[in-house]
Amino acid sequence: MIDAAGRELVRLALQEDLAGFGDVTSLWTIPEEARARGHIVAREPATVSGLELAAEVCAQVDTSLEFAALVDEGAAVVAGDALAEVSGVARSLLSAERTLLNILRHLCGVATQAARFADAVEGTGAVVVDTRKTLPGLRHWEKRAVRDGGCGNHRFGLFDMVLIKDNHLMAGGGITATVRRAKELAPFGMKVEVEVVSEAGLREALGAGADIIMLDNMPPADMVACVRLARDLAPTVLLEASGRVSLDSVRAIAETGVDIISTSALTAGAPPVDLALDFVDMEE
Amino acid sequence: MIDAAGRELVRLALQEDLAGFGDVTSLWTIPEEARARGHIVAREPATVSGLELAAEVCAQVDTSLEFAALVDEGAAVVAGDALAEVSGVARSLLSAERTLLNILRHLCGVATQAARFADAVEGTGAVVVDTRKTLPGLRHWEKRAVRDGGCGNHRFGLFDMVLIKDNHLMAGGGITATVRRAKELAPFGMKVEVEVVSEAGLREALGAGADIIMLDNMPPADMVACVRLARDLAPTVLLEASGRVSLDSVRAIAETGVDIISTSALTAGAPPVDLALDFVDMEE
Amino acid sequence: MIDAAGRELVRLALQEDLAGFGDVTSLWTIPEEARARGHIVAREPATVSGLELAAEVCAQVDTSLEFAALVDEGAAVVAGDALAEVSGVARSLLSAERTLLNILRHLCGVATQAARFADAVEGTGAVVVDTRKTLPGLRHWEKRAVRDGGCGNHRFGLFDMVLIKDNHLMAGGGITATVRRAKELAPFGMKVEVEVVSEAGLREALGAGADIIMLDNMPPADMVACVRLARDLAPTVLLEASGRVSLDSVRAIAETGVDIISTSALTAGAPPVDLALDFVDMEE
Amino acid sequence: MIDAAGRELVRLALQEDLAGFGDVTSLWTIPEEARARGHIVAREPATVSGLELAAEVCAQVDTSLEFAALVDEGAAVVAGDALAEVSGVARSLLSAERTLLNILRHLCGVATQAARFADAVEGTGAVVVDTRKTLPGLRHWEKRAVRDGGCGNHRFGLFDMVLIKDNHLMAGGGITATVRRAKELAPFGMKVEVEVVSEAGLREALGAGADIIMLDNMPPADMVACVRLARDLAPTVLLEASGRVSLDSVRAIAETGVDIISTSALTAGAPPVDLALDFVDMEE
Amino acid sequence: MIDAAGRELVRLALQEDLAGFGDVTSLWTIPEEARARGHIVAREPATVSGLELAAEVCAQVDTSLEFAALVDEGAAVVAGDALAEVSGVARSLLSAERTLLNILRHLCGVATQAARFADAVEGTGAVVVDTRKTLPGLRHWEKRAVRDGGCGNHRFGLFDMVLIKDNHLMAGGGITATVRRAKELAPFGMKVEVEVVSEAGLREALGAGADIIMLDNMPPADMVACVRLARDLAPTVLLEASGRVSLDSVRAIAETGVDIISTSALTAGAPPVDLALDFVDMEE
Amino acid sequence: MIDAAGRELVRLALQEDLAGFGDVTSLWTIPEEARARGHIVAREPATVSGLELAAEVCAQVDTSLEFAALVDEGAAVVAGDALAEVSGVARSLLSAERTLLNILRHLCGVATQAARFADAVEGTGAVVVDTRKTLPGLRHWEKRAVRDGGCGNHRFGLFDMVLIKDNHLMAGGGITATVRRAKELAPFGMKVEVEVVSEAGLREALGAGADIIMLDNMPPADMVACVRLARDLAPTVLLEASGRVSLDSVRAIAETGVDIISTSALTAGAPPVDLALDFVDMEE
Repeated sequence: MIDAAGRELVRLALQEDLAGFGDVTSLWTIPEEARARGHIVAREPATVSGLELAAEVCAQVDTSLEFAALVDEGAAVVAGDALAEVSGVARSLLSAERTLLNILRHLCGVATQAARFADAVEGTGAVVVDTRKTLPGLRHWEKRAVRDGGCGNHRFGLFDMVLIKDNHLMAGGGITATVRRAKELAPFGMKVEVEVVSEAGLREALGAGADIIMLDNMPPADMVACVRLARDLAPTVLLEASGRVSLDSVRAIAETGVDIISTSALTAGAPPVDLALDFVDMEE
Repeated sequence: MIDAAGRELVRLALQEDLAGFGDVTSLWTIPEEARARGHIVAREPATVSGLELAAEVCAQVDTSLEFAALVDEGAAVVAGDALAEVSGVARSLLSAERTLLNILRHLCGVATQAARFADAVEGTGAVVVDTRKTLPGLRHWEKRAVRDGGCGNHRFGLFDMVLIKDNHLMAGGGITATVRRAKELAPFGMKVEVEVVSEAGLREALGAGADIIMLDNMPPADMVACVRLARDLAPTVLLEASGRVSLDSVRAIAETGVDIISTSALTAGAPPVDLALDFVDMEE
Repeated sequence: MIDAAGRELVRLALQEDLAGFGDVTSLWTIPEEARARGHIVAREPATVSGLELAAEVCAQVDTSLEFAALVDEGAAVVAGDALAEVSGVARSLLSAERTLLNILRHLCGVATQAARFADAVEGTGAVVVDTRKTLPGLRHWEKRAVRDGGCGNHRFGLFDMVLIKDNHLMAGGGITATVRRAKELAPFGMKVEVEVVSEAGLREALGAGADIIMLDNMPPADMVACVRLARDLAPTVLLEASGRVSLDSVRAIAETGVDIISTSALTAGAPPVDLALDFVDMEE
Repeated sequence: MIDAAGRELVRLALQEDLAGFGDVTSLWTIPEEARARGHIVAREPATVSGLELAAEVCAQVDTSLEFAALVDEGAAVVAGDALAEVSGVARSLLSAERTLLNILRHLCGVATQAARFADAVEGTGAVVVDTRKTLPGLRHWEKRAVRDGGCGNHRFGLFDMVLIKDNHLMAGGGITATVRRAKELAPFGMKVEVEVVSEAGLREALGAGADIIMLDNMPPADMVACVRLARDLAPTVLLEASGRVSLDSVRAIAETGVDIISTSALTAGAPPVDLALDFVDMEE
Repeated sequence: MIDAAGRELVRLALQEDLAGFGDVTSLWTIPEEARARGHIVAREPATVSGLELAAEVCAQVDTSLEFAALVDEGAAVVAGDALAEVSGVARSLLSAERTLLNILRHLCGVATQAARFADAVEGTGAVVVDTRKTLPGLRHWEKRAVRDGGCGNHRFGLFDMVLIKDNHLMAGGGITATVRRAKELAPFGMKVEVEVVSEAGLREALGAGADIIMLDNMPPADMVACVRLARDLAPTVLLEASGRVSLDSVRAIAETGVDIISTSALTAGAPPVDLALDFVDMEE
Repeated sequence: MIDAAGRELVRLALQEDLAGFGDVTSLWTIPEEARARGHIVAREPATVSGLELAAEVCAQVDTSLEFAALVDEGAAVVAGDALAEVSGVARSLLSAERTLLNILRHLCGVATQAARFADAVEGTGAVVVDTRKTLPGLRHWEKRAVRDGGCGNHRFGLFDMVLIKDNHLMAGGGITATVRRAKELAPFGMKVEVEVVSEAGLREALGAGADIIMLDNMPPADMVACVRLARDLAPTVLLEASGRVSLDSVRAIAETGVDIISTSALTAGAPPVDLALDFVDMEE
């Protein structure tokens, strides 16, 4: 379901493209009665995400446009495959085209990037997850694209997990004091994660009762030692690796035995997928 | 100035990060009275854009936060340079950090990409311009980042220029008929551009009175011939090259003599710039 | 199609009329189950515009109301003609009545005024166009009403054309410098118009490469000379007459040979058309 | 004070004028640093209204613009008088100019029209009041302009008075039944007015306990008889004349002795006042 | 009908419950295809109100949910009675449940409280009415719940009646001066009520022409004397009792002969009704 | 800080009270220039909460109003104590009064109720927490009032914890299957709580790895046994008691040794605190 924030984002996007006189080209070159039908086609292999938001674009441009998904979210498609069929008033279709493709190209890009990472760690037991490095208004959709691509999600925002980083540690008086304070004061439903940069930090975090521990920017060898230590002392604590994660490095990190690997590479700068709206019919 | 749409975009972004209990980590590990000061620092060379929107993030998180730009929009910075100083209530600063950086990383990425293209065509007389391939809600800011990086802007949206593409030509009965119809019917303040794929198309477009002609996906040699022909027949008509434009190919295209080269590479998929908020002070 | 701004305008209008307890008269004198049917009838000759916005009023008051247009936008009607039929829950119809009529009376007024001007210049080759003197939130609809009445549109807003007036000339250092600066710096898709008040100004504007030249407040005789000069020097440049335009003066101005005549008289102060909602059925 | 609806109306108006690239003329012909100062000057005699909303336009365009009223709302000015001084960044001033003037011209037009009617009935004891025939989003401001011009206000909307008209009477079973039902069922804080077209109707309305009685479209002679009758039977009941009210007819109506004369001529189609923004300074 | 403010209130409520990843429990424990059907059941006797707003919650969560009222607003139900049936996608139903029940519990609580007061004064001729002591965004709905429970409404807000209290009297120079000023200056459609605390005040208020007089915090014996006096002097003036009104005291107050008894006990702190959503079917 | 949702809630509340002509009483009885100063005074002992939202009401009514808190949120006050001082334009103060008090009365009511529960369990080690039974738009503020009163918070909404209840168990195939599924599929940052009604359920939940277990509606004796069992098998698992919690029963429940006791009595139906705005000065 599209919630109010999603509708608002689409509204902002359409307002950017359809201010003033609107789609002046279509208004004055396409007959009012002309109807058209087109396919949203992949020009390269991709994992699909964002069809629901694309449908919302059509609905906001013209409630009479029809949008029919031809594949499921998360589907892997090859060049030439159609993701969806759109049909209706030709002017409306042309007015919706760019906004619809801009959104879909980006979200398929994220899902496709996620699929690459998911493939890279397959069989290791580690899950690659996203971060909060997302674009304004798109977090819900980028996080869903990450799942559609086969990866997992870190916290959604600042509000659904305590994650203690260096600045908090500095203000809070070190790992032990800060983790304990958070566990005592934060709502009991919140997990507490803390970032450590050494085995000593890890020991302290385990002692303080952290639910999750982030091994930040550690060389794989150190990570292996940390994993062993943590499994011994607190087998239920989750371990997250973070920093210097790329498609090249991710499998080695996964093989250290960590549970979770977080990387902004799933979202920020994921290359957009080349998609186009190919008209299959236009009639007046 | 930030307009209502810009404020709304920031609102959507902050709502994603600060729902529910808000920044649970800061609320329960940072003292309420603590104040902090930090610098937004580039970790790699970049061209700056988006400071105004970053300031808006601070203002919406906490009106008492201070945001002071240390460089101008469009400035070229090197790794280690500070772009801005932010200071105020420590909790508020930490709550604003990620949203602020997400926006700035993206817009500096676009400006930096634009600077690369501007450098590549320097001295040729051609201007590289963006397209409408932008992200929802960010068009105003991405187009400004393009200018901050030294490139130019194509039309803002569907409303501020007539741009006749293949689908319009198909519906409109070819170049001559469609261009004439648009020039007759569209508001007189609108320029009319038409896409052509051959010298024959160019001749027809010139005859029909197009103000701008887009040479779409032509090999450079054909483009040279088209430029020569157009300059002869209609010296004031602008020529735009489009398709297969990359940092590698752009100079050769510019040297064909076209006026404008449009490419989505300025915006879509421009790599984000690595920026961080480094705290220089935190006191309770 | 009604866009988000149109829906918001209708929302504001209904909120003015239906705050607090709502339509207290209907709520406490008309039975909840009563249904009614009525015609929106012209009490004087008119050109029709605004039916789409009127339908939106009904939809926002009560989604079950039915609104059926009986004539097209732009139709000429005489006293007694019905423009539309509305039917449904009687209370809802009475609650919608005034807001619906207020909008329609105004927009038919603009279209009717435009039709008078269009008639006045018929056969001259000149087009009468509107200005930006419109009422808040109604520009899209007033500009459409102008077209429905047979006239044309000037730029929509400040954003879709460069129009250099006296204040810009003063700041920009005269016609030549200012026009050249605008042509160089503004996005290439924008036409550049400049206002001149004399033949000397016209010559300068033509030399600087203006796309459109506004002859401001010139006596018809001077205008004739200017038209002749411009056609000689730059046959594709558009000429616009502005100032002291009324139903009495417009034909003489059109006969000077200018392309465009702009006047706020199409919109500001156009007399509203007398319309009423006549009930044809009310049953409990 | 401007409430949320007023701010929203100004937002809609500015969005119409400043979409896309914004004020392209000022952006590319006026230096960023230039500052200007101007006066809003009347070109004809007028009664002033709407300064508060004009100030809001400035504030929304650029919070640093200064708007200083030079006269009070309701003041009578002559041609050449300045209503307000605006100063600040030249680009911002030029961007605000049209929207500001459009609003002010309209509201001064309403106030000026109201002043004409107030003068026409001076000394008669009757008050001329407006109706609900206002433009979308402007009712609060048009009703205030009516008061600024020296006339009074009828109900604000459907919610602050019961006003029983012909359709309600038809559905409610006549004057006696409908008025009684309304007095019994509507919240006790609401006055009940009923429309009558004859002396018989007046008698019935008085008997049913109406608080206010509207004499609709009656010839003055009949009105005189009705006034006499009502004063005899129920001296505290207010009498309102409605229909065929114009500047020519209003005094005769007032002299019948009615308390209130309502007319849409105060608002709908009131001629806008000719105002301009004259720059007195522009410096870079 | 739900107006824009009602939709906005539901939007705010759902945003509180469904931020971030949304209903994480249902998303990851209930199959996407599962459908369910449930009844909203009273666990204690109640008077029903708010079904329309509850339906809006369902519609906003998922437009495909079905909400069918099983009783009318204002109905008296006993423990075990079903108020409505909701059915559709199981996840959506579970996501809507709490927000829907929170609203309905509160509004049924107000209606039930109102029914208690209506019973208490039955046969006395007095009407118990609410005050403006309502919760933000809920006034329309609480006032309707009051009517559904058989009581009446005082003014909706500050705008639909003049109600002169102690602070206005202090600023206005006493009862006579203030009431006269209000009757002269306020729009003629407004009733004028004034608060008095003694028989002397009552005499003054009657003399000044108040339409309604509030006897504030008077002992019943004094009230009886005031009622007698007012009926003698001005039989059409309404008398309202206010202050120290409870279920225990209300009948005695009603028997003094006042027309209206206002009390915040109808809304503020009315105990919520115990309601639950009982699933009758869930199938995958 | 007030976020966008808080501002919107205040906007809705003010719109209810200040539609149409606004505060007609103040407008026409209080001089425009009059200024006033008042104290918000408790008429009974209370714990304070909501001052920030009250300040927002003032700011939205008139930005020039001054609101100065005289006590901290969470302070215990006695009858006669002033919570805040408000001063400025008298009309504005009177327009803000009711909306401000409505909000503050309710939130102080919640905080005061929470303080009663916090006192009742003092020294036991158990924390009393709220539920999601809050009023639309007020959850953030009610949950803060709960903390101000010395109790704790359960999850904020459906999004920040997995809480598996009977319906999820039915759909998910029992405790073991459902808890395991949630732990595997939900984002790793989420804690998983499950509701059990017996010792057998508790054993199963512990075995499945639940982070928190809710003992629903158990007699205290059974709870004691459950606590003992859980402490033996999984000392870090949190135990929550739920159902039949009142001020009378809560201490006995706390003494069973559970960690958390959740009850809707903190929010739903908490009696509002009697507060008033007492003017200390009014001058023209």
